[in-house]
Amino acid sequence: MKKVTIIGGGTGIFANLSGLKEYPLDLGVVMTMMDSGGSTGKLRVQLGVLPPGDLRQCLVALSDAPKLWRDLFLYRFDEGDFRGHNFGNIFLSTLEKLASDYDEVVELASYILKSKGEVCPVTYTQTNLKATYLDGTKLISEDAIDSYKGDSNIVDLTLTNPAVATEKTVSRLKHSDFIILGPGDLYTSIFPVLLVDGVIDAIRLSKAKIIVVMNLMNKTGQTTDFSTFTILEEFHKYLGGNKIDYVLMSNSNIDKKVLAYYASHGELPIKNDLDEKNFKGEIIKADISSTISYIKPSGDNLERTLLRHDP
Amino acid sequence: MKKVTIIGGGTGIFANLSGLKEYPLDLGVVMTMMDSGGSTGKLRVQLGVLPPGDLRQCLVALSDAPKLWRDLFLYRFDEGDFRGHNFGNIFLSTLEKLASDYDEVVELASYILKSKGEVCPVTYTQTNLKATYLDGTKLISEDAIDSYKGDSNIVDLTLTNPAVATEKTVSRLKHSDFIILGPGDLYTSIFPVLLVDGVIDAIRLSKAKIIVVMNLMNKTGQTTDFSTFTILEEFHKYLGGNKIDYVLMSNSNIDKKVLAYYASHGELPIKNDLDEKNFKGEIIKADISSTISYIKPSGDNLERTLLRHDP
Repeated sequence: MKKVTIIGGGTGIFANLSGLKEYPLDLGVVMTMMDSGGSTGKLRVQLGVLPPGDLRQCLVALSDAPKLWRDLFLYRFDEGDFRGHNFGNIFLSTLEKLASDYDEVVELASYILKSKGEVCPVTYTQTNLKATYLDGTKLISEDAIDSYKGDSNIVDLTLTNPAVATEKTVSRLKHSDFIILGPGDLYTSIFPVLLVDGVIDAIRLSKAKIIVVMNLMNKTGQTTDFSTFTILEEFHKYLGGNKIDYVLMSNSNIDKKVLAYYASHGELPIKNDLDEKNFKGEIIKADISSTISYIKPSGDNLERTLLRHDP
Repeated sequence: MKKVTIIGGGTGIFANLSGLKEYPLDLGVVMTMMDSGGSTGKLRVQLGVLPPGDLRQCLVALSDAPKLWRDLFLYRFDEGDFRGHNFGNIFLSTLEKLASDYDEVVELASYILKSKGEVCPVTYTQTNLKATYLDGTKLISEDAIDSYKGDSNIVDLTLTNPAVATEKTVSRLKHSDFIILGPGDLYTSIFPVLLVDGVIDAIRLSKAKIIVVMNLMNKTGQTTDFSTFTILEEFHKYLGGNKIDYVLMSNSNIDKKVLAYYASHGELPIKNDLDEKNFKGEIIKADISSTISYIKPSGDNLERTLLRHDP
């Protein structure tokens, strides 16, 4: 069975994992542990725990448990002392307080959620992201970088303190047949994994083909006006000599209204210039994106149409 | 297999259930749903859920799950947004928000905790206790009655609005061979169950022998200076014509230092006058209590010695 490992965090890998778990693969995920926003950020500060948010997302994406269980893990409180917190985050943080080590947390949570794949937090070191921008701006923490809306580019992304890759991560990457990066936010979901000591070397020691799933839209403040080639150049910068073998790109027809909605929020599709540039890997284009309707929970009840990779 | 049903709430039935679950019995519990203090009270008010505290205690007492699971359910946060809250309570309350009905909550929680008995919340009606005292004082809610330290006696205990017994409760009680009341606080843990519509009738329709496990100490503000006979009179008042067949009483030798500690807090052993009064049932005395050492979590770290029924 082919060993396929996804690298990333956030909502992007949710689609990726949900889709691939239906195939006969030895599937796994190495996920970022540098999230610092929202419920996760509060739990890190208040309870001194590792960020549970991405672990929760991956567990649910890979889960074969009844719907009620999955819903429970994703449930977000909109009232009371827990307002804004997420049940799955509370669950993982409490477990961390009681378990003998974080491997036990992952093991028990994987068991409970009947995970159909191996879930590897990239590190158990408490650390944060630090971004330096072309104009000299420096931002520390994932949520600060995520919410930056300026027009300077990140020239350097590092960790506030060095982090060591977990044994599971290193072993999994070394023996992978395919390593898939993305989709997801480059500097806050994907590259953070690559910054952890041991990850780049493990990829180098593997015989894995490296696949990048190209994002659909540029993210303001991170990849404003990037082309597909610029994005791959950034990937190569953080891949430390490991070369991308395949790029998977969407060629779906997207409703003009949806594009106009995104454009009105300053978000534009990524211009593809790979065909005219000197990219050595293989480009695969496929109809892999779609729109979903979405009502923000406990918000204004306005229905939004979002563009997403289709699992 | 004998069907044995315990009625009550609080820490008293924890010992009872933990002990009996080791025997080959069809064991079950009908527990109070009128708790209103602490974490449970906040959750009731903030999330509009049923009180989870006693359900949690019963589930853990009956649990055959690994220790980590049971510890998780009893874990109390001492910091952050969840300070004072209990993980098990958060779990049950979140499940209630998502489940189609409360039976599903109990079912899933029983499954997760590998409960070795049937757990029956006495009612799914939201209601509260109302106590009228001899001196005219009226108190509403379980926590107000529980923390009352006056010297008047409760002459009438009712519910603020009528509550209907759950189907499981009625069916279980009807078919029980033994119904065990207590140990526990009379007016806040045991009698509340008897106030729910359907409970008294179900006991009457059963052929069950009724057993009262006598408390070890009087509770100031509830049973100050009560004798064992006075206590059974109170039981009979709320049992609506159902007669007590057995009384189980501790004859353990209790260390004088422990008794002195209790006395210094105004809590005295219950004087036994059953032998000289006209009690029709059978009295069984046994060595069923012991002292436990206890350090209050996140408190002053003083070790306390508590007197408890031994499982």
